[in-house]
Amino acid sequence: MTFTSDDQRYMNRALELAALGRYSTKPNPCVGCVIVDEGHVIAEGWHKKAGEPHAEVYALQSAAAAAKGATAYVTLEPCSHHGRTPPCADGLINAGVSRVVIAMQDPNPIVSGQGVAKLQAAGIEVAVGLFEEQAIALNQAFYHRMTTGQPYIFSKVAMSLDGKTAMASGESQWITGAAARKDVHQLRAESDIVLTGVGTILADDPQLTARDGLEHIAVEQPHRVILDSQLKTPVNARIFKSNVKVTILTCSNNQDAMTALQQAGCTVQVIAADAQGQVDLYAVHEWLRSQAINSVMVEAGALLNGALLQAGIIDELIIYMAPSALGSDARGAFSMPQVSTLSDRVQLHYVGMHELDSDIKLTYRVKREG
Amino acid sequence: MTFTSDDQRYMNRALELAALGRYSTKPNPCVGCVIVDEGHVIAEGWHKKAGEPHAEVYALQSAAAAAKGATAYVTLEPCSHHGRTPPCADGLINAGVSRVVIAMQDPNPIVSGQGVAKLQAAGIEVAVGLFEEQAIALNQAFYHRMTTGQPYIFSKVAMSLDGKTAMASGESQWITGAAARKDVHQLRAESDIVLTGVGTILADDPQLTARDGLEHIAVEQPHRVILDSQLKTPVNARIFKSNVKVTILTCSNNQDAMTALQQAGCTVQVIAADAQGQVDLYAVHEWLRSQAINSVMVEAGALLNGALLQAGIIDELIIYMAPSALGSDARGAFSMPQVSTLSDRVQLHYVGMHELDSDIKLTYRVKREG
Repeated sequence: MTFTSDDQRYMNRALELAALGRYSTKPNPCVGCVIVDEGHVIAEGWHKKAGEPHAEVYALQSAAAAAKGATAYVTLEPCSHHGRTPPCADGLINAGVSRVVIAMQDPNPIVSGQGVAKLQAAGIEVAVGLFEEQAIALNQAFYHRMTTGQPYIFSKVAMSLDGKTAMASGESQWITGAAARKDVHQLRAESDIVLTGVGTILADDPQLTARDGLEHIAVEQPHRVILDSQLKTPVNARIFKSNVKVTILTCSNNQDAMTALQQAGCTVQVIAADAQGQVDLYAVHEWLRSQAINSVMVEAGALLNGALLQAGIIDELIIYMAPSALGSDARGAFSMPQVSTLSDRVQLHYVGMHELDSDIKLTYRVKREG
Repeated sequence: MTFTSDDQRYMNRALELAALGRYSTKPNPCVGCVIVDEGHVIAEGWHKKAGEPHAEVYALQSAAAAAKGATAYVTLEPCSHHGRTPPCADGLINAGVSRVVIAMQDPNPIVSGQGVAKLQAAGIEVAVGLFEEQAIALNQAFYHRMTTGQPYIFSKVAMSLDGKTAMASGESQWITGAAARKDVHQLRAESDIVLTGVGTILADDPQLTARDGLEHIAVEQPHRVILDSQLKTPVNARIFKSNVKVTILTCSNNQDAMTALQQAGCTVQVIAADAQGQVDLYAVHEWLRSQAINSVMVEAGALLNGALLQAGIIDELIIYMAPSALGSDARGAFSMPQVSTLSDRVQLHYVGMHELDSDIKLTYRVKREG
């Protein structure tokens, strides 16, 4: 399929619009739409929030009668089914657009192609695949979930060049600089769930909300989830202070502790225990899958990070590497007592890097066995 | 000073020629020379080996009478003093060249500018500074030594993403891949000295010569230096097998061990001991400075690397980072027991990275205090 340079320009704009929703549409994908008639952009729209209108709806409302005979540029195949909003394919047909250019098909194998078919059946010219790669990248976690049925799970670690996250004393603020910390807040803002362990709650008492550098942007805060086998999370932990959802996954049946934590404002969910009496990580994985969300960001200490890595639950590592060496006595990033030979090591695939002031950000995909 | 595109083309060629000597000229700098007359390259030359003719001599010999009235492009200011060879400035004057274009002045503050002055006094047009940055980069360690009076000392470390160089058992071959190992051999070939500790000799029995990927290239092998406080290096160590210089720095006076090692083919040098009865690292630094060499490559274990880093003796870290995680029980890269708070950490400055197959190579400069 060939596209003109005008097509590219308008789709680029649609992608820009889509990206405006990246901190607020979760668990929906970001989508942008541009309507063009006789070389003029007559309307634009982007999806803002799950449950609210899709990008096409905003653009079509804005275009009104002028949409007749126009071309619509949409970053994701218009939906053809009735969800919380009416199907966008119908909206485009009813508005009388004559051509629809789509960056990527719906990755959900069950509905993929149905929006295109509906538009074509109505006599509309449809072209698919312009800037497909960029459109997929913009909704990487959504794409992952739709194609694998599993949320995309990544762990963020801030460490020194020699792999240390804190001094032996626990001292760790701040290993990385302000730009790296701001980037972490953006990752939180993009994530559906931020997963941590009670060890981190007890050691650092973090809020785990997305704040720095996001003051003037609409953010749908991530749902914070704490793995807390014995219900040791203090009821006055800072994570309860903001008005954002917190869930504790436990294998304890201590009713008093449960009631106290529920009164502090969180949901407590009992899941299976493993042989050591800790929450079973495969049960955690299963629970995450059941949440119908795209992405999970792990912010945890060496024990939980190491256990998740060893269990094969983490898809990607995002490392913020500070320009410093802390020495062998400092605390490592991944506790993996079961790895004792090189053949047992966790194998990774380098994805890319970029500089954040004096730190670097490295991304690695975890290699799956077999 | 302005240069034409022809000037740029010829100086580029001179830099290419200079680089041919990068594994063989030590401790001299790499230098290339191109002689051009009426738009034609009439002769080329490059410095091959210390004690042998300089680049200009080869080029002038090849040009013979045709050099009269020509332009010479030289990557480094021609020498004006009698060393092991006669001054190149005189050679250019005697050959009757009319113009000399120079990439960088001699960085040695004592002679810098004298070659240029001599040429100008003879009525030759001289232009300096074309591709100066590239010329300095090509002779980075030489430049460092000439401007600071100290050799440039860097440590090469091959490690996992989480900063581990070996399993707890000592198993370490191979953490990084073939491309990274080949790069290590190039670093050795570029270095005057490869410095290691007796611990590495006992654990890995390495040769520490430059071999992989250099089979068809003239290499002046690095002088291997072992820090061995108690003279524990075995006389049958593989490092003695190749016909290349080995020096052991010790603080032991064990005459039998000394004699045995000397018979194995190495030089044994007694230097000062520190309070712990180990070779004093500042005495090692002093000894390295006394060798009139440009670069020292450290290939050592966590103890020596950590001690050198803490002592402020290392200028740069070159890290080959494998795409794997080995876990907290594996061996770290830098043992630094004196670093117990973040404010004591060794601070670095990120210089750059590149990919080597599935590994990455990261370069960091060590920040000096004050």
